[in-house]
Amino acid sequence: MNNFVYDIPVKVYFGENQLCHLGEELKKYGSRVLLTYGGGSIKKIGLYDKVINELNSSGLEVFELSGIEPNPRIDSVRKGAQMCKEHNIDVLLAVGGGSTIDATKFMAAGACVDHDPWDFLSEKWSPIEKALPIVSILTLSATGSEMDCGGVISNPETKDKIGRLAPPMLPKVSFLDPTLTYSVNAYQTACGAADMISHILEVYFNMEQDLYMLDCFMEGMLKTIIKYTPVAIQDPENYEARANLMWTSSWAINGFINGGKRLAWSCHPMEHELSAIYDITHGLGLAILTPRWLEYCLDETTVSKYVQFATNVFGVEASLPPMEIAREGIRRLSEFLFDTIGLQRTFTEVGIKEEDFPVMARKACGNGTLKGFKHLNQQDIEAIFRMCL
Amino acid sequence: MNNFVYDIPVKVYFGENQLCHLGEELKKYGSRVLLTYGGGSIKKIGLYDKVINELNSSGLEVFELSGIEPNPRIDSVRKGAQMCKEHNIDVLLAVGGGSTIDATKFMAAGACVDHDPWDFLSEKWSPIEKALPIVSILTLSATGSEMDCGGVISNPETKDKIGRLAPPMLPKVSFLDPTLTYSVNAYQTACGAADMISHILEVYFNMEQDLYMLDCFMEGMLKTIIKYTPVAIQDPENYEARANLMWTSSWAINGFINGGKRLAWSCHPMEHELSAIYDITHGLGLAILTPRWLEYCLDETTVSKYVQFATNVFGVEASLPPMEIAREGIRRLSEFLFDTIGLQRTFTEVGIKEEDFPVMARKACGNGTLKGFKHLNQQDIEAIFRMCL
Repeated sequence: MNNFVYDIPVKVYFGENQLCHLGEELKKYGSRVLLTYGGGSIKKIGLYDKVINELNSSGLEVFELSGIEPNPRIDSVRKGAQMCKEHNIDVLLAVGGGSTIDATKFMAAGACVDHDPWDFLSEKWSPIEKALPIVSILTLSATGSEMDCGGVISNPETKDKIGRLAPPMLPKVSFLDPTLTYSVNAYQTACGAADMISHILEVYFNMEQDLYMLDCFMEGMLKTIIKYTPVAIQDPENYEARANLMWTSSWAINGFINGGKRLAWSCHPMEHELSAIYDITHGLGLAILTPRWLEYCLDETTVSKYVQFATNVFGVEASLPPMEIAREGIRRLSEFLFDTIGLQRTFTEVGIKEEDFPVMARKACGNGTLKGFKHLNQQDIEAIFRMCL
Repeated sequence: MNNFVYDIPVKVYFGENQLCHLGEELKKYGSRVLLTYGGGSIKKIGLYDKVINELNSSGLEVFELSGIEPNPRIDSVRKGAQMCKEHNIDVLLAVGGGSTIDATKFMAAGACVDHDPWDFLSEKWSPIEKALPIVSILTLSATGSEMDCGGVISNPETKDKIGRLAPPMLPKVSFLDPTLTYSVNAYQTACGAADMISHILEVYFNMEQDLYMLDCFMEGMLKTIIKYTPVAIQDPENYEARANLMWTSSWAINGFINGGKRLAWSCHPMEHELSAIYDITHGLGLAILTPRWLEYCLDETTVSKYVQFATNVFGVEASLPPMEIAREGIRRLSEFLFDTIGLQRTFTEVGIKEEDFPVMARKACGNGTLKGFKHLNQQDIEAIFRMCL
């Protein structure tokens, strides 16, 4: 068991009608706010007006940057960093899902340096030592960006999609109001669930000695997602379902579950190569990949972890032979993703072509080995991709 | 489901040999340190020397207050607050279990006011608006004081034992090294486990609509305690067992599991009256009380929560009639506390006398009603006490 440091000082206002605290929280950091959001869904649900009212009545000066893309692009980040510098922004307010919050994090960091923000993500890997303070209002339960210090940015010119963690980018405060996710449609709700499941499984499937209490918590979060995603799809305004999914999205990736594990994720790096080329929804790519990755990594040395997963999460009968239990666990997960919550099952269905496998696989493993639950080279990754056809 | 604010900015260094970070963390707050500890067990295990070396090599000026009692007394708090004022202390370093950390919290608050620190706890209930910064090094997994903002102080003159929460008393940094609990004996290990179990059950047994994911986490922590306490008792230097118990002690009471529940604890207020008079170990008092309290509160309106507990924590067969499942859950809990980890079973065994029941019961309910899972008046509490004979 390895040592670790736990340090997640994000303050969260959870529940309805908590925006009355927005002004007081922002004013701790200054008076000039850059409000960032995506394609305008926050206007449709009336959130934009509420936010602007709160900001105005608190006497804050507001600048706006809208149009942040799903799979957010480096050009948006550049624009935001530039605005922060031009307008002497004190604090950034991201209103949206993971894409908006991710992009805002790199704007906040970009505002503190003279170089191009892409240098944070390119081979230069410039240090992220400072960032302007960030506050978020979450509208989609999925990426957990509201409570972690990471983000993923796409660069269409280079066909790269790269993620990075840096403590200065941790939001100071996040507002989690489950009612703001009532308008999230069935497909996006399902994709969010697949993203959360993947965040948990990337940590859970690991043969390192770790803290059992955290495994229990991960199993609890998986059961929560399995219980409530179908409810939220059937009954989009079910507060209990939306609240459980929302709080789970934050805890699936804020770092608590890592304990002292040396982590190396597998499905996320593979998926980033898919969505870098095809711009498909991140959660959908993960849903297609995850059960195949699990199947590929199953052998006598790893089976015990699958048995724990299958029995504790899906209640698979513990008296069966271990390999049978393991396969039943994968089958139940596939059934959940592709039947219960209705996500597409194959690359073929979403238009991902075999001709792109070699280049995507090579990039996913950085032309070497993708270290993870099982280390994967280009051939391994291509084999997993073929299982997804 | 109620709204809540999540805000737990304690930084935790978890694992062995992390004390190399002690100096750098303390120096963030100044150079004059008040080191507080209890009866000297930290000298026996060599921790005192390590701490002093770290403090000296970091160039910190150290003042010491030792002799903090189990069930820490207001006189120690007064002494510590006075020392902080006399020596212009910048930061307090508590080294020990919950008693030392609790007392240190009130010293840190007392240092910032002119009045007697007992006024924080007496009927005056003076506000706690400030406290000097606190760093802790934990040596006992039990109270969770290392990651919460509360403490309990005894006043032998008034025979009071009173707890209070106040955000300024939250430790800035806590060091959790499982090896520092290797020397904790079987009895204290068992009492610590009973304390943690009670912290969880005081929150878990509640009929309010809440977050299912948190119920799963509570069940996971209970299973962790049940799995590892006997291991730690049998094999005191088992790192995995000590580590799981240590991290569970923090999360059982740091506030995360509360979600939006309106909480009102039952066993803790009852137990405080026992240990105010008899000075018995807090966890032992809780162990004796908890199963009886559960038995007393079981009826048709509450049985569903017991069923959840019995099936999810102890794996009781779900097809039995609910009342039977509930009683089996209580029986299994008793078996764990009194047989598996060997705690004493009755008030009679620990010398608590029936003649004191009326006064203890009256104080526990504040001469009115003890609001909790079931509201209890003096007669109810006396009845529960009699079940403990």
